[in-house]
Amino acid sequence: MLDYKIIEVKQSIFEDNDADADRLRQELKEQKTFLINLMSAPGSGKTTTLCQTIARLKDEMEIGVMEADIDSDVDAATITEAGVRAIQIHTGGMCHLDADMTRQGLHEFGTEGLDLVFLENVGNLVCPAEFDTGSIKNVMILSVPEGDDKPYKYPLMFSVCDVVLINKCDTLAVFSDFSKDAVEKRIHELNPDAEIFYISAKTGEGFEGWINWLRGQVNDFR
Amino acid sequence: MLDYKIIEVKQSIFEDNDADADRLRQELKEQKTFLINLMSAPGSGKTTTLCQTIARLKDEMEIGVMEADIDSDVDAATITEAGVRAIQIHTGGMCHLDADMTRQGLHEFGTEGLDLVFLENVGNLVCPAEFDTGSIKNVMILSVPEGDDKPYKYPLMFSVCDVVLINKCDTLAVFSDFSKDAVEKRIHELNPDAEIFYISAKTGEGFEGWINWLRGQVNDFR
Repeated sequence: MLDYKIIEVKQSIFEDNDADADRLRQELKEQKTFLINLMSAPGSGKTTTLCQTIARLKDEMEIGVMEADIDSDVDAATITEAGVRAIQIHTGGMCHLDADMTRQGLHEFGTEGLDLVFLENVGNLVCPAEFDTGSIKNVMILSVPEGDDKPYKYPLMFSVCDVVLINKCDTLAVFSDFSKDAVEKRIHELNPDAEIFYISAKTGEGFEGWINWLRGQVNDFR
Repeated sequence: MLDYKIIEVKQSIFEDNDADADRLRQELKEQKTFLINLMSAPGSGKTTTLCQTIARLKDEMEIGVMEADIDSDVDAATITEAGVRAIQIHTGGMCHLDADMTRQGLHEFGTEGLDLVFLENVGNLVCPAEFDTGSIKNVMILSVPEGDDKPYKYPLMFSVCDVVLINKCDTLAVFSDFSKDAVEKRIHELNPDAEIFYISAKTGEGFEGWINWLRGQVNDFR
């Protein structure tokens, strides 16, 4: 028996996603549920980063995770083992979530009593950047093996994110052509206010800055 | 002065992309131009793999490369330095290329006398799998740091590809949880006929099998 629900979301009925996202954000503010939309390319380490984050915060706040995927439910299973509530959202082939699909997920989930909800979006640096999910903050992961030139290729994603987590930093010696200075410059050219934290979800190093940012945000919101 | 054109492609006017892709494939057969649609997630090493491939084949056949990107032309510049003709296709935010967009690129390029053309698709494991570009073969790259579970998450991409290149094999010792047996089993469950080659575009190791496959395909086609 599964410890998490799997739901199939339907395409939005709203023509104006931006307006719908603003409505959802207002609802979340009233419920005091801090929703983070977590985005990245496939294989950047979203689920592992969430597990490390949950381990550091689950004793001080109520956390839930909505895992969005085209198919499979391996991520929801992993999150459930990390000890928080999870649901798996299947997008039926869709490459992103919009605000109404996010609302359908939240509704099935039930946000009552949840302080912090993560939406793990579909692994994709293109389409999710174009659709406001109604989240309070957008966070993306860039992993070191992907290279420091990604802000050039996917500028909208870097522009819409409040935080860029640079993951797999334990491999910086292996991927020695990855320049921290270059990537920071390229990110800040697109988005001067972006917060950048270097982490390794595998080893746990570097989480202090990200956890402090997140704790501050959630506490200010409650 | 740039040594390559940058073209902005427009959204397709054809409603039935599959039929249009079949028409383009027929045209390519008549022109004896072998078109490969190369797909992967962001940062898997498409451009570096192309540079290594070009170095090994450019003396025995005429090669061209169409670089598709939402923005930037860093890849076309890299390919031009590798010594073959390149054009940069800007998709205007689109997350994939369809057959008519591919045709617009080929038309601007001029395929006269070209034996082998690579289309480097937008870095994305979701949307490009859904749109037949009219290519003769589909090839994808999965890089070791992305993990061996990706066939579960992006099954359509693995299903539509004739070849899966597993790149960054020089880092298998670092990413020691990547199982060759597991990834091969997962790929072949989705696509029993998929050819799998392990390569490192950085070090050049493992290219023999891929180059032999490619040489055989192009020679049979001419």
